[in-house]
Amino acid sequence: MPHIQLPEGLPGILGPMAYSPQTTKPLNELAEVLLRTNASDSLTQGERELIASYTSRRNDCFFCSTSHGAAADYLLGRDKQVVAQTWENPDTAPVSDKMKALLTIAGSVRQGGKYVTPEQVAEAREHGATDQDIHDTVLIAAAFCMYNRYVDGLATWAPQDSAVYADMGETLATKGYVHFNEEQPA
Amino acid sequence: MPHIQLPEGLPGILGPMAYSPQTTKPLNELAEVLLRTNASDSLTQGERELIASYTSRRNDCFFCSTSHGAAADYLLGRDKQVVAQTWENPDTAPVSDKMKALLTIAGSVRQGGKYVTPEQVAEAREHGATDQDIHDTVLIAAAFCMYNRYVDGLATWAPQDSAVYADMGETLATKGYVHFNEEQPA
Repeated sequence: MPHIQLPEGLPGILGPMAYSPQTTKPLNELAEVLLRTNASDSLTQGERELIASYTSRRNDCFFCSTSHGAAADYLLGRDKQVVAQTWENPDTAPVSDKMKALLTIAGSVRQGGKYVTPEQVAEAREHGATDQDIHDTVLIAAAFCMYNRYVDGLATWAPQDSAVYADMGETLATKGYVHFNEEQPA
Repeated sequence: MPHIQLPEGLPGILGPMAYSPQTTKPLNELAEVLLRTNASDSLTQGERELIASYTSRRNDCFFCSTSHGAAADYLLGRDKQVVAQTWENPDTAPVSDKMKALLTIAGSVRQGGKYVTPEQVAEAREHGATDQDIHDTVLIAAAFCMYNRYVDGLATWAPQDSAVYADMGETLATKGYVHFNEEQPA
């Protein structure tokens, strides 16, 4: 049961987001820029969702890891099982060496900002990561340390049916985040 | 030295914020709503800055804890040393029993969302905390887990001179956060 009275029927972050539209507006705008607007050949939308999902999984946040994992699966090709393998072990997952290095940075950010080392950053650069890639990786991982704590710190509920997340992932991947703001009175 | 090339002369979060105006806009809007717009008799602006500073201190983020601590000092009365005593031990600090309970919740959020217990929430309610207070405390602590990681995950520099922070704290307290967006090309 959630720690506060939230609108019913809305899973995960959607409950607190409906409860507090004023904070929801910038929370969705941040996700939109980080995961979609900033996407480029250098760090694709699928790779950004993978970083979000991996960080959330390491933070043990079921709702965020599963929903953003489903978005990454939709974007990267579900049959390739990239998300499941990255959750298991990024070093042996079917992702580029650059992504492996960026996932290591995301894992450090999750523990705390000071866990990121110059060696980890140098490794990412060796494999082609730009300043923008490193900036965005740090901020995606940091932002999901916030979203995860918002979801679990209020003890929200989450569906267990994986089909629900497959639909949610496709919606996040194709419609994004700010449309939620437009559908609700702000 | 920062992990990426940031605009020079800007301490702490201001470097990455100038580097990435698109993400800065929602980051500042979130701080504005959480720390200022939502402030009320129930949870004042000074108490919100105190939660932000305490969370950042526990996260060992020098720039955020000191700058938001200075904002809290400005709002709560610097001579009362509320921030220094809260950093030392919230249980013996000169804050209300409600604030002590909310700071306990913030300390749990910092560790991870699932560390917040129904008992901690019940304790806050016993001392008058509303759903809105609990929601805002969880999201302030969660948001500073993001800001702290953004600042330290990019290895930004921070001034050591306490007079710099006293000025910064007064500016944050009186002008807030979104004016930064207006001063920069977005």
